[in-house]
Amino acid sequence: MKGSAPEGKSGRTKQYIIERVSPVFNRKGFAGTSLSDLTGATGLTKGSIYGNFKNKEEVALRAFDHGVGRIIGAFNEEMARQETSLGKLLAYPKVYRLLRDEIVATGGCPLANTLTDADDTHQALRKAATGILVYWRKTVSRLIEKGIRAGEFRHDADPVKTALSIITIIEGSSVLAKGTGSVEYYANGIDAVEELILSLKKQHPEDVTHDER
Amino acid sequence: MKGSAPEGKSGRTKQYIIERVSPVFNRKGFAGTSLSDLTGATGLTKGSIYGNFKNKEEVALRAFDHGVGRIIGAFNEEMARQETSLGKLLAYPKVYRLLRDEIVATGGCPLANTLTDADDTHQALRKAATGILVYWRKTVSRLIEKGIRAGEFRHDADPVKTALSIITIIEGSSVLAKGTGSVEYYANGIDAVEELILSLKKQHPEDVTHDER
Repeated sequence: MKGSAPEGKSGRTKQYIIERVSPVFNRKGFAGTSLSDLTGATGLTKGSIYGNFKNKEEVALRAFDHGVGRIIGAFNEEMARQETSLGKLLAYPKVYRLLRDEIVATGGCPLANTLTDADDTHQALRKAATGILVYWRKTVSRLIEKGIRAGEFRHDADPVKTALSIITIIEGSSVLAKGTGSVEYYANGIDAVEELILSLKKQHPEDVTHDER
Repeated sequence: MKGSAPEGKSGRTKQYIIERVSPVFNRKGFAGTSLSDLTGATGLTKGSIYGNFKNKEEVALRAFDHGVGRIIGAFNEEMARQETSLGKLLAYPKVYRLLRDEIVATGGCPLANTLTDADDTHQALRKAATGILVYWRKTVSRLIEKGIRAGEFRHDADPVKTALSIITIIEGSSVLAKGTGSVEYYANGIDAVEELILSLKKQHPEDVTHDER
């Protein structure tokens, strides 16, 4: 994340603006967020906002980094507490369960929203979202590889395909929950991701022997 | 689907307009589709288009019905060819594989696009998409229930949760493929749905006895 700690009065104002407008961009999208949404959410004038940022796209990019960074930060914190690859992977369903109400209240997953919102006119936003997705895929597939090497996970587990499926279920359930207004999709997605992760585990000593024939 | 066969010259013109503008709405969204997109895609004047439809929302609704109807029609055709619940469920990955290039070329799944596009100002579109989703969930969960009763599927399979997961993976992979421009997500999603459906099957006669203890 680009979200290094802001310093001084200007840094604090920027941080304040980003915190306030991040859920607005997330809910309404880039094109759907008007200048009056930005002044309304912050209580600041147009001059104050554009005195701190180059243009609307810079505000949106920083707001995206902030929204995604909040979730990634929570994952990383939980993962740091865990010793095993299984424990670290289970940080995803665990943190999504904890943050569910907050994520729903702020308009769903910023990654899915930005990917579905950013049309060809906002390449910078799409690029930022695609970058996060690549980073996320690598993180998950490496955790699975590590778990296989450590003997925690089945030898025939597919790190890349499983990583793609975990991310697809999380993002798909966020999109469906937001689109329908029903958190049921979100709740089911978290359960499905948890089951998928648990299915990576070696079952019984007999199965291990069987797998390694 | 509302797509009853159009009759007469006016019906044919309407049908022509809808076929041409359906991929445009799907790619650009409701707000992102301009009048010049509609005249450009059809080669017709504003007068011809709005002589056939009440307003832009009616065109968008019919375009959505057309895009979704095309995919549902392909599912239904393949399902009608299959005898078993397993065969009918496998129509989803099979048809998605067949239609993949066409769906990608026309901007991804119209259901995911409409759900992510339709904000609060376009309630009719969101309602149409949510209606399709409810119909789809019911179709899938009933097929699974039927398969369990017929002894094709495991007794402990969960029809509702599995239906939600199938739909979440399909829609999530469509969103990620469109957002990133990489069909890899789409291809993986189809594989994951196929595996999920195959995992419903009873494994061995021994397992059946074990399950039914």
